[in-house]
Amino acid sequence: MINFSATYTDQYQLAMAEVYFNNGHKDHIAVFDYYYRKNPFQGGYAVFAGLEDLLRILQDLKFTKKDLEYLRKGGFSDKFLSYLKNFRFTGTIYASHEGDIVFPNRPILQVEANIIEAQIIETMLLNLLNFQTLVATKASRIRLVAGNRHLMEFGMRRAQGAGSYHASRAAIIGGFNGTSNVIASEDFNIPVSGTMAHSFIQSFDDELEAFRSFAKGRPNNCVLLVDTYNTLSSGLPNSITVAKEMEQRGQKLAGIRLDSGDLAYLARESRKMLDNAGLDYVKIIASNQLDEYVVKSLLEQKAPIDIFGIGTSLVTGQPDAALDGVYKLSMSNGKPRLKISETLAKITIPHIKQVYRIRDKNGELIGADAITLREETELEKIYDPVGPLKSLPVKEFYMEPLLHKVMENGHIQIESRSVWDIAEYAAERLESLPPEYKRFDNPHIYKIGISRRLKEERENLIKKYKKMDHEDVDHN
Amino acid sequence: MINFSATYTDQYQLAMAEVYFNNGHKDHIAVFDYYYRKNPFQGGYAVFAGLEDLLRILQDLKFTKKDLEYLRKGGFSDKFLSYLKNFRFTGTIYASHEGDIVFPNRPILQVEANIIEAQIIETMLLNLLNFQTLVATKASRIRLVAGNRHLMEFGMRRAQGAGSYHASRAAIIGGFNGTSNVIASEDFNIPVSGTMAHSFIQSFDDELEAFRSFAKGRPNNCVLLVDTYNTLSSGLPNSITVAKEMEQRGQKLAGIRLDSGDLAYLARESRKMLDNAGLDYVKIIASNQLDEYVVKSLLEQKAPIDIFGIGTSLVTGQPDAALDGVYKLSMSNGKPRLKISETLAKITIPHIKQVYRIRDKNGELIGADAITLREETELEKIYDPVGPLKSLPVKEFYMEPLLHKVMENGHIQIESRSVWDIAEYAAERLESLPPEYKRFDNPHIYKIGISRRLKEERENLIKKYKKMDHEDVDHN
Repeated sequence: MINFSATYTDQYQLAMAEVYFNNGHKDHIAVFDYYYRKNPFQGGYAVFAGLEDLLRILQDLKFTKKDLEYLRKGGFSDKFLSYLKNFRFTGTIYASHEGDIVFPNRPILQVEANIIEAQIIETMLLNLLNFQTLVATKASRIRLVAGNRHLMEFGMRRAQGAGSYHASRAAIIGGFNGTSNVIASEDFNIPVSGTMAHSFIQSFDDELEAFRSFAKGRPNNCVLLVDTYNTLSSGLPNSITVAKEMEQRGQKLAGIRLDSGDLAYLARESRKMLDNAGLDYVKIIASNQLDEYVVKSLLEQKAPIDIFGIGTSLVTGQPDAALDGVYKLSMSNGKPRLKISETLAKITIPHIKQVYRIRDKNGELIGADAITLREETELEKIYDPVGPLKSLPVKEFYMEPLLHKVMENGHIQIESRSVWDIAEYAAERLESLPPEYKRFDNPHIYKIGISRRLKEERENLIKKYKKMDHEDVDHN
Repeated sequence: MINFSATYTDQYQLAMAEVYFNNGHKDHIAVFDYYYRKNPFQGGYAVFAGLEDLLRILQDLKFTKKDLEYLRKGGFSDKFLSYLKNFRFTGTIYASHEGDIVFPNRPILQVEANIIEAQIIETMLLNLLNFQTLVATKASRIRLVAGNRHLMEFGMRRAQGAGSYHASRAAIIGGFNGTSNVIASEDFNIPVSGTMAHSFIQSFDDELEAFRSFAKGRPNNCVLLVDTYNTLSSGLPNSITVAKEMEQRGQKLAGIRLDSGDLAYLARESRKMLDNAGLDYVKIIASNQLDEYVVKSLLEQKAPIDIFGIGTSLVTGQPDAALDGVYKLSMSNGKPRLKISETLAKITIPHIKQVYRIRDKNGELIGADAITLREETELEKIYDPVGPLKSLPVKEFYMEPLLHKVMENGHIQIESRSVWDIAEYAAERLESLPPEYKRFDNPHIYKIGISRRLKEERENLIKKYKKMDHEDVDHN
C-alpha cells in the first residue's frame, strides 16, 4: 500500500548528506546505534518490532525521478542529484531478532555504512522501529493479562492515519490473533475478521429482522452486535431467537458482541441467558475502549468474555504515543565518537559493539544484558555504565549474543519469517522473562552492564572531550 | 506515497456490504453523519482537517485485481466480487469547509450514498478525518501561544509510522510554517527545512571544524546545532567564530539551534553573546520535547526564541492520540434512524440536516451552532438537545450554513485549495472565535442547539423505539 521512497526522511539528512558529498567525507564509514531510553507504559521491557519491514524497504530504497525533480527545485546541486540518482543503501546492519524482548540503553540495531547512506535512512528507521516496537509492546501487555483469550485489533478508524497499517502488523507480533484491517491483512498475511456495526441494525425497521438478515447472509461466521437498543431486553432475546433458527438450518451462531455498558455485568448476564437457551457454544465478544487494565479487571471479575476487540489504546500506544528511540553515532572514519551530556546515562557508548543476554547455569535470565566491544570474546565482569563502582562477575554464566548480521552490503542476510513466526518467537522470549519484569506496577529494572574495556574506552573519550572543549560539562 | 485502495477498510464493512448485496438492500440510500463527541486536549474547539485529501481518494477509489483476489480467498462470493470489481464511490457529501473550527456533537460531514458504498468508505473517512483534525487542532493551540514566531514540524522520527505523512499536512493547516518531512513537503507542496544533527558534529574531530564545514556547504541556510558538547562554552563561541568568517565571505549565519537544557536561560545567554558579537541577525531556534504549554512558558519568560521546532507532541496529538470521531446512520431507505443510549447526549440525531453558525447583529459569534432539518429555512428558536427546557430565540440573528455540497455522485464539487489556503481560512475562522473558547484551562463550552422540528422528530422516534423494544432504556 505504501511506496517508501528515499524522500521518506527529514530534510536535514539531505542537507548533511550534501555537505558530506562536497567536503570529502562521503566515503567515511559511520556506525550508528539504535536504542531507546525509557520503557513504554512504565513497563519493564519492550518487544522489538519493525525490523523485517525496514530491511525489505532498505533493500529497494531509491530516489524516484519525481523525488529528484522535487529536490532540484529545493536547491540541491546537479552533482549531488546525480549521486542521489544512483543512491542505494549498501550498508551492513546488525540487529536483535525481530520479536525479541529489549531494554533501554543498549543497542538493538547497529548500522555500518558510508555516512551519507547512514544519515538518509535514519528517519525512516526511527519512524518504523519506534512505532512498531511501541505497538507490539502494548499488544504484549494485553496478551499477558488476557491469557489464552482471543484478541482482535479493531483500531483502524481511530489510528493515526496510515499508521494503522503497521500498527496491525505490530499487534500480531505482540500477541494478537487477528485484525479488522483488510489492507494490512492482505499485505502482511494476517487473519482478518469483523462482526457488524450498529448502523446495520439501525438500517432495518427492527433488530430481529436485522439479525435474521445477517445470519442468513453470513451463516459461517455470524456475530451479532446486541447493544443497539437494549442489550439484555432486546439484543440477547433476539440473538437467541436467531441462534435457534440457525440450529434448525444446521448452522451455529458464532457469537454476540457487547460494545457498551458494564461489560462484566452484561457478559455474565448474557452468558446465563445463552446457556439457559442451550447455546453454550455461542461466544461472547467484548469491545469499547479496552486496554490492558480494563481487560485485567474484567477477567479478575470473572467476566465470561471469550474474545476481546481492542482499538484505540492499542494502535496509538496510549498513553505514550511514541517510543523515544534514538540513532546515535558511535564511530566514524575509524574513530570512536561520543555525545556528551550532563548526565552520565545520556552520554553515548562509543565503538562497534556486541550485546549479550546473560543466563545463569540453570538457563535463567539474571536480569542484565552486557554490552562489549564486538571483538571481545572473554568477559570476566560487567560494570554499571552509570554507577562506576558496581560490577558483577559473569565468567560462569552463559552469554547469548543478541546482535546478528541481518543485512550486508545492502542485501538481507536472514530468511524472511511470517508475522506469525515472529509472534511465536516474541512469545517464547517474553515467556523466559521472569514475572517481576512484566508486572505493570513498578516492574523490576532489567539492567545493562558494560565490559571493562568498553568502560575504559568510554571514560578516556569523555575525559578527552571535556579537556578539549571546556573544563567541565555544564548543566544543559 | 500511499496508494489508498478500497481495502483500506475494516472487514465488517465488507461483511455487511455482502449481506446488503444479497438481501435486496443494496440500493437503499443511507445518510451518515460524521461528528466527534469530545474536544481534544480538553480544549474548546477543533480545526477540521483531512477533507480535501479524503475527497481526492474517494473520487478514485476502487478495488484492485490483487484486492479482489485476496477477498476471493477470504470467502466472498463471485457475484459480490463482480460487484466490487466495478465498485466506485458515487455518493454525495456535504461538509464543513476544511479548516473550519468545529465543535462536538454536530455533523461536520454528511454522506448520502447507497448503503454499501457508505459503509465501505466509513473506516477510511474516520481514519483520515479523525487524525488530521487531531493534529491540526494541536498545531492551532501551539500557534495560539506562539504569536508570529516561526513554527516548524519536526516529528517524523517519532510519528506513528506513515501517520507522519498526514500529520505534516495537518500541522500546516493548524498554523505551522513548515516541516522537516521531505516526502510530505513533496506531495503536499509545503515548505521543508532542516538544520543539522549531533551526529554531524560528532563525526568531526572538533566542533569548530564541523561548523566550518557545514557553513561552507550550506551558506544560504546555515543553522548550527550548539549543544553537542557545551552550549555556552563551546557551541556559541564556535558559532560566533563561524558567523564572523561567513561575514568575511559576504554570507550570513542564519541561526543557531538549542536542543537541550534550560531553553529559556540558554536562549537569553545565547542572544546576549550573539548581540555582543554584532550578530543580532542570527536567529535562535529551539527544539526538544516542546508542546503548547512549554512554548507558552518560554515566551512568558521572554525567552528570545525566534523559531520553534516541534515534534512528537504535535504529530502524535499528545496526550490524546485520537479524536473520538464517529459515523452514525441518520437515515436509510427513506426513514430517519436512531441509535439509542442511556444518556440523551449519546442518542443520535436522525434525518438529513443542515448546521448553522449563529452571529449576532454585530457579526459576533453567539457561541452556538444550530442543527436543523436540511429543508428548514426559518428558525425562531433553538433548543438544547440534552436539556429539553432550555431554548434561545435566534430570529434576529445571522445564520451561516456550514454544510456545503463538496461531492456529488462521486465527483468533487469544490475547487482544490492549497494547504496554505486552507491554513489561512483556518486562521481566519479561529480568529473570529472569542478568546474564552480558546483558553487552555476550562474553556467556555460552545453550544449546539436543535430546531423545534428536529427536536420533535427525534423525541417521537425515541418514544417509538422505546415502545417497540422495551419499556425503558437500560443502563448499558
